[in-house]
Amino acid sequence: MERIVTDRRIITLMTDFGDSDAYAGIMKGAILCIDPDAKIVDVTHNAPVFRISSAAYLLASYYKRFPAGTVHCAVVDPGVGGKRACIVVEAGGCLFVLPDNGLISMVVNAGGLEYRAWRIANEEMMLKPVSATFHGRDIFAPTAAKLAMGTPPESVGPEITDIDLSAVSAARRSGNKVSGVVVHVDRFGNYITNIGNDVLAGFDGETIIVKIGDLSIMGISRTFSDKAPGDFAVYPGSCGYMEIGVNKGSAIEMIGRPVGTRVLVRGKEKLQ
Amino acid sequence: MERIVTDRRIITLMTDFGDSDAYAGIMKGAILCIDPDAKIVDVTHNAPVFRISSAAYLLASYYKRFPAGTVHCAVVDPGVGGKRACIVVEAGGCLFVLPDNGLISMVVNAGGLEYRAWRIANEEMMLKPVSATFHGRDIFAPTAAKLAMGTPPESVGPEITDIDLSAVSAARRSGNKVSGVVVHVDRFGNYITNIGNDVLAGFDGETIIVKIGDLSIMGISRTFSDKAPGDFAVYPGSCGYMEIGVNKGSAIEMIGRPVGTRVLVRGKEKLQ
Amino acid sequence: MERIVTDRRIITLMTDFGDSDAYAGIMKGAILCIDPDAKIVDVTHNAPVFRISSAAYLLASYYKRFPAGTVHCAVVDPGVGGKRACIVVEAGGCLFVLPDNGLISMVVNAGGLEYRAWRIANEEMMLKPVSATFHGRDIFAPTAAKLAMGTPPESVGPEITDIDLSAVSAARRSGNKVSGVVVHVDRFGNYITNIGNDVLAGFDGETIIVKIGDLSIMGISRTFSDKAPGDFAVYPGSCGYMEIGVNKGSAIEMIGRPVGTRVLVRGKEKLQ
Repeated sequence: MERIVTDRRIITLMTDFGDSDAYAGIMKGAILCIDPDAKIVDVTHNAPVFRISSAAYLLASYYKRFPAGTVHCAVVDPGVGGKRACIVVEAGGCLFVLPDNGLISMVVNAGGLEYRAWRIANEEMMLKPVSATFHGRDIFAPTAAKLAMGTPPESVGPEITDIDLSAVSAARRSGNKVSGVVVHVDRFGNYITNIGNDVLAGFDGETIIVKIGDLSIMGISRTFSDKAPGDFAVYPGSCGYMEIGVNKGSAIEMIGRPVGTRVLVRGKEKLQ
Repeated sequence: MERIVTDRRIITLMTDFGDSDAYAGIMKGAILCIDPDAKIVDVTHNAPVFRISSAAYLLASYYKRFPAGTVHCAVVDPGVGGKRACIVVEAGGCLFVLPDNGLISMVVNAGGLEYRAWRIANEEMMLKPVSATFHGRDIFAPTAAKLAMGTPPESVGPEITDIDLSAVSAARRSGNKVSGVVVHVDRFGNYITNIGNDVLAGFDGETIIVKIGDLSIMGISRTFSDKAPGDFAVYPGSCGYMEIGVNKGSAIEMIGRPVGTRVLVRGKEKLQ
Repeated sequence: MERIVTDRRIITLMTDFGDSDAYAGIMKGAILCIDPDAKIVDVTHNAPVFRISSAAYLLASYYKRFPAGTVHCAVVDPGVGGKRACIVVEAGGCLFVLPDNGLISMVVNAGGLEYRAWRIANEEMMLKPVSATFHGRDIFAPTAAKLAMGTPPESVGPEITDIDLSAVSAARRSGNKVSGVVVHVDRFGNYITNIGNDVLAGFDGETIIVKIGDLSIMGISRTFSDKAPGDFAVYPGSCGYMEIGVNKGSAIEMIGRPVGTRVLVRGKEKLQ
């Protein structure tokens, strides 16, 4: 795996800290105390609280859209203060700073990416004393700042090989069937799955049947607006994964199944 | 119309993508991939979903408050993937990058501004392949980044003369009557109209009667806090347009009329 | 009091303007018109509307986390357009630009900080004409931009000695009793008080009894996750003040008392 070295790395932030407290602002302050020239980009601070699969999907959807070498700092961390480690992962030309709770799983699993990982153990990466509840400020933000300034990931602590990749696994294909799950519901009520658009592209679109709960949807659309208002549509999502939506409506309101629901795709292989 | 040329243009973003997904973050990534030094300013990503008149008002309220030459990228776009064009508009010393669906209407109509417009057709302005549902990332963000770096608007595609200016028209005055509409309700529940403060200034404030629905309000206040708690007030808004508010209350809760409601002003001309 | 002089100061913003209008964006534009290179950091624009004690707490929680010399601009201002002054306060190595309504009280009272203050009166600090309702844009933002560029606070107007420090007073200790109040409830439903962690540290943790309303909680935890799910926990908060939380639950939902509720702590002094 080749390492991308840049003069100055951008730092992105995703948290579930909300936007009515100062927690996200405090993380930015902690970064700027170390690197006053840091270029910080807020992705969202309203990731669904404590829901790893949504955050894992969001991370997979945006990391590729930033310049190579960007440091992606993501803190959705129900186990803060507990036993889960704080880690740095190098994958896909980026650095990720996050808790070892599966947040990185979709980035790695979906792409089948090569990766390296280190446990943050070097106290120079931390704001002391480290609190029991705010590792975003005390560990993740300062580590991200140091990495952005050029500290190599090897310096944060020991390399590890066993990280948590269980939260979102890759969709499984067996013959002409693909089995996946709903990983996120966006603000428009669209279901987003872990089934890559490339998987869909392998089938003849007209023969595809998608099952979610009791519902079967036939055929693939270019987008939901190709359907009549109120109709379900299955389409290749703009962020790389199959989505289920409703034209001028909300799929989650009409289908009612939560994140984690199984989704099955069946179809005939496309003739070359 | 004189063009303002600057070394480096600021890019502002307004969308209705919400702040709990990564869509806004992805637009920022797309900009930074083209111009890592871009100065991006989030105005809001919570513009009322698909409501053009509110977004058209917001754009008119903030564009003048940024340095000349700023690139304002605004994506409230119910017709994404459909027939509406993606355009660049030059007006008021700024560049606007937005769908041709009326978003620019209040900027142009309210000021009676001279403008030029181009349809984005040059594929060098786009992230390929262009998706059916995320033109914010694939067309608007990259075009804004290129303009911010100095690409002249003539390069984005053919100049066009017929853009959609229908969403918010200018208030009409006839004799001592002015007819306008509610274009936005802000978070405090204040009604904001398309009737410019300068129109109000032409009347003798004490003689003015404002009608909205069945309600008539007499006289102009400096601000709502000049009224007794619970009383309606008509006053020149801080962003250039007449507002209707309630001291320590919410106008929309008390009046109950939606955006789009007609507002009539009658009064006697001010003696010079 | 020594003054910290830096080449370029960061400007932080906290307001209760919400994130669905353009008000916060307009403040950023007003800053950038004066200083196009300003480094602006959004802390939050969703501070609880008009609730001074929450905003005073938030300010106290984040100001120390930014580089020395930062300009903190905070606008939660129910009295805008009324008699309260607009002020600059120098304290703790930072500059604060805010209404004189108690917003600065927790910063000063909690730390027992030395401070100096000036009333913003110099019209060069203002965007003219100054509106009756939007001092964020017309007074606070431009003053912050000038200070960030190196204008000394003495230039904004006359020095004043009598500023409003009443909103959040310091917790009072008398013998082995401490009397404080709830100053904020965060998004997770945790109660945050004005009782400093250092006060708690003076007691033997196991002997402590905390009373809020009818409820008595015994003993101090390291954090709420040390308790059984659904149990109350009193613990030293990550931002410096005693908090009351519930493991996997919401303290405000279970206790139901509002911001402003009195909190009493009693315990035995720790043996050295």
